[in-house]
Amino acid sequence: MTVTVQELRTFLGGSAKAAGMVHDLKDMGKFAFIRLRMADGVIQCVYNYGEERVRPRHEQAVVITGELVEEPRSPHGFELRAEEITVLSEPASEAPDLIKSRVKTGLEADLKYRAASLRNDRRRAAFRIQAALAGAFRAYLAGNGFTEIFSPKIVAGSAEGGANIFKLEYFGQKAFLAQSPQFYKQTLVPAFLRVFEIAPVFRAEKHDTPRHLNEYISVDFEMGFIESFRDVCEMERGMLSYAFDYLRENCADSLSALKCELPEVGEIPYVTFREAKERVAERFGRRIKDPHDLEPEEERLISQMFKEDTGSDFVFVTHYPDKKRPFYAKNCAEDPKLTESFDLLYKGMEITTGGQRIHDYDEQTAKMERKGLVPADFESFLQMHKYGAPPHGGLGMGLERLCMKLFDDDNIRWDSMFPRDTGRLAP
Amino acid sequence: MTVTVQELRTFLGGSAKAAGMVHDLKDMGKFAFIRLRMADGVIQCVYNYGEERVRPRHEQAVVITGELVEEPRSPHGFELRAEEITVLSEPASEAPDLIKSRVKTGLEADLKYRAASLRNDRRRAAFRIQAALAGAFRAYLAGNGFTEIFSPKIVAGSAEGGANIFKLEYFGQKAFLAQSPQFYKQTLVPAFLRVFEIAPVFRAEKHDTPRHLNEYISVDFEMGFIESFRDVCEMERGMLSYAFDYLRENCADSLSALKCELPEVGEIPYVTFREAKERVAERFGRRIKDPHDLEPEEERLISQMFKEDTGSDFVFVTHYPDKKRPFYAKNCAEDPKLTESFDLLYKGMEITTGGQRIHDYDEQTAKMERKGLVPADFESFLQMHKYGAPPHGGLGMGLERLCMKLFDDDNIRWDSMFPRDTGRLAP
Repeated sequence: MTVTVQELRTFLGGSAKAAGMVHDLKDMGKFAFIRLRMADGVIQCVYNYGEERVRPRHEQAVVITGELVEEPRSPHGFELRAEEITVLSEPASEAPDLIKSRVKTGLEADLKYRAASLRNDRRRAAFRIQAALAGAFRAYLAGNGFTEIFSPKIVAGSAEGGANIFKLEYFGQKAFLAQSPQFYKQTLVPAFLRVFEIAPVFRAEKHDTPRHLNEYISVDFEMGFIESFRDVCEMERGMLSYAFDYLRENCADSLSALKCELPEVGEIPYVTFREAKERVAERFGRRIKDPHDLEPEEERLISQMFKEDTGSDFVFVTHYPDKKRPFYAKNCAEDPKLTESFDLLYKGMEITTGGQRIHDYDEQTAKMERKGLVPADFESFLQMHKYGAPPHGGLGMGLERLCMKLFDDDNIRWDSMFPRDTGRLAP
Repeated sequence: MTVTVQELRTFLGGSAKAAGMVHDLKDMGKFAFIRLRMADGVIQCVYNYGEERVRPRHEQAVVITGELVEEPRSPHGFELRAEEITVLSEPASEAPDLIKSRVKTGLEADLKYRAASLRNDRRRAAFRIQAALAGAFRAYLAGNGFTEIFSPKIVAGSAEGGANIFKLEYFGQKAFLAQSPQFYKQTLVPAFLRVFEIAPVFRAEKHDTPRHLNEYISVDFEMGFIESFRDVCEMERGMLSYAFDYLRENCADSLSALKCELPEVGEIPYVTFREAKERVAERFGRRIKDPHDLEPEEERLISQMFKEDTGSDFVFVTHYPDKKRPFYAKNCAEDPKLTESFDLLYKGMEITTGGQRIHDYDEQTAKMERKGLVPADFESFLQMHKYGAPPHGGLGMGLERLCMKLFDDDNIRWDSMFPRDTGRLAP
């Protein structure tokens, strides 16, 4: 039997055996339209009820045998004229409405009954796209000489500092959940020159907002021999552009199920943090409250301004103040109060943070001391600097946040299969 | 400048600019052979010392400009005749010996100075292969209609049961680190029919052996509409076969650096747990001590026996006793004391555990009760059964363990970039 639409298509014009879940039913009296949910899409079947024949039910697991014929009005351009339906399993209870694509449910119900709601056309499309994005990012990076790494998630120290870190007991030692693979990807640059990882990171942030998760998938890469952080930005631009082209080619059905129009990634404008702040204050008549960081509202307005002025949904904001960047960020030679760093804003929201890192041992230990840190606490991280490292930089991008903005969702929780927030540990 | 050997090759016969780390030096008096470590390999450069010219040092980050000429005796078949060397950065201290490929270090030193030892030819080769394996597994699975998933690692309950689970505080709630994505991948089968994930799992096992890690990368997949667990086994066989072919084609250098001969994956023999135990007892004159589980020595002998009898490095051991399998394992209809399950042994060690799962709601709740579990504790997992699920099964494979056996390493720690064991949290 066949579980993918792709393989089923090869039987067009002949007899076929399709396995799937009864996704939707339209009972026409003497016959029924059955939408069958397969691994990579939903197909249409027509079935004549006979006297003693099965009446299909929602969420049965079935194998449908019949003639596969062209039918331009059907999804995928064909229809299965069912002759026989074998029921392999029955649901124990009526499936909740949120499986049906026509029913628009609230977020809380959707998350509570995730085993049902993830069967919905929209959620399936969204997560098929998320998977395709991850695959396309990997393909692009591997094609550019990046080696995939697997860094540990249980760690002894904190890369980002602060209190936003989960603690655990580790055989009598104090341990933490990694907030990012930062130390490890930097450590691996001298060995592999270019590395990437797409893996979970953990942030114990107490705020409960529509754009934060306490566990999310971070797309991380780090590259040696950069001339400036702009090399990192341009690598990201290439990666996004490649991935969106890949989606257009391979995920047309999913994109259309979500009515998602992918952005064209042309040139992405650059603006310094300071200039962005000043221009937004001027253009929108705002007072600058925090000179060291961007408020969410400012991010929104910077994006709006660049969308209006250049047509780009993306903008790189560069040269963030040293105060708000971690200790491994490289300071600007011309103005040490600034860093060689950037955020990428997309449709009003930060989706990436990156920059050039310090590669010199003395420069790094001196900066640690300036920041009130003790270099001895970072002994294993500093091995990398000690034994020699090239100029390098990298970034971390939140996969769910990118999806949230791509799909214009109002809450990031829609775009995590099983989101973790301050109150949510299940399902 | 160019950081990959692959791109550098396009400059053959002309002038080129290669960026990399000074991996090795052979000082010949008036000139030197420099091995330059690039992103995807090491190239040979020849450099004539002039009066005022740079004398290269180990682990400098350099850009070498020169003529790229064919040289069949060199790695990759070419040599860079260096005319100019620009030093971008200097190591702060002499690199330890363990970077040099000729030096054979002990495991403890290797792990302690991982920032250095991962620059070694052997370690780089091993982890390039590990990355290629992960990529090939994903490609095979995606090509077979599997959707990649990202399941949470912070969870409310335990899939495998037992005490081997890390606990953490989660905003005032008790939480755990996921021992496997089991519940999530099963939950997603009715939605996507076929799903996979390659991600870290966490086991708080107290034993400190050469084959256990407390955090490792698990290659997990789960597939709907199987006729028996054999469909899962054959999918794994296809995946391994595809991956090894991919490595032969794409990682010849790394394989030869490790002197690794990949196995031919032909037909993999099957043997029941009971028969394997009895035949080993008979053939090797052993007494059966534990009738419900395999001792490591028995696994070794089963593999040896099948290698001798069939030539296969792999063997599927099937139908494990219910006692030793988790509550979601499907019992055999003919003998409910056995399960529709398997392990894959490779060169004497279990590298995969899998089987058919229970898809029926009543069957699952009844088995929970039989095992002394309370179905109400598994409410969100049971949603999947309640709303309908096809017959399904899947497996989890330890990526580091596969590598350990591929490379004939004596300890799995060699094959984790930054291993976690009961005493090790750093680097």
